[in-house]
Amino acid sequence: MIEKYMRIAIEEANKAKDIDEVPIGCVIVKDDTILAKTHNLRESLNSAIAHAEILAIEQACKKLNTWHLYGCDIYITLEPCPMCAGAIMQSRIKNVYFGANNPKGGSYGSNFNLNKIRGLNHYPNVEKHILEEECSNILKEYFKGKRKKLQ
Amino acid sequence: MIEKYMRIAIEEANKAKDIDEVPIGCVIVKDDTILAKTHNLRESLNSAIAHAEILAIEQACKKLNTWHLYGCDIYITLEPCPMCAGAIMQSRIKNVYFGANNPKGGSYGSNFNLNKIRGLNHYPNVEKHILEEECSNILKEYFKGKRKKLQ
Repeated sequence: MIEKYMRIAIEEANKAKDIDEVPIGCVIVKDDTILAKTHNLRESLNSAIAHAEILAIEQACKKLNTWHLYGCDIYITLEPCPMCAGAIMQSRIKNVYFGANNPKGGSYGSNFNLNKIRGLNHYPNVEKHILEEECSNILKEYFKGKRKKLQ
Repeated sequence: MIEKYMRIAIEEANKAKDIDEVPIGCVIVKDDTILAKTHNLRESLNSAIAHAEILAIEQACKKLNTWHLYGCDIYITLEPCPMCAGAIMQSRIKNVYFGANNPKGGSYGSNFNLNKIRGLNHYPNVEKHILEEECSNILKEYFKGKRKKLQ
């Protein structure tokens, strides 16, 4: 089940790649129902907050008509940045599943661990390394292509 | 100048209070021009991400038609949470001015300091204690009123 939803997040990441966005995808699920499927749209929307996770949380809140996503799970191809890990905390998401580690701001172990900060309102359960190689390869291929274009 | 803009952020916080939202206000300024004035709308919009800062960054990006807010300053009545400090980092805002400390997730010194995490893309300059008493009193009065209602 976890891999099934991560494959959908990977499809979303590929949609980002097709429009020349950094390929990161995300899915939010509750009771085996998909509430949101999104990909990074920072360049397309010209918005610093248009990461896949923020867009997904916004969509899921709209769908449930509430700001708290109790009992929801989020699947992300890349370890969230501080903004997105913070949004996951704010929305009370239950489980976080991610694929590739993010050495440039990963907030569940790579640069720091938001779940280790005391006094926050909520601490989701976090599982990493889900289809890690596939998630990581999409990013590697994307940046390899970018560098080739620059040569 | 710093106090002038913080007073506008306080006006925004009061607008939040008037609609029974936790009273937090925010202003984004570039070259002495206000790009965004917002207040917390989490309950009104039923959205976990509808903090004053996220709404302000979204507005400012729209106004400048770009995801990076180089040279912009943000004024906030309360120390930002991890999501909002992360969004400030993502948007490359230059200066952060805030009023009251936030013991429930403050991310520039209270619960942790995002600016001390290595390997991030950007580190804004942060100044605290701006009109601290006024900023803090709005929140205290709000929660006192809430508790009274509950008795």
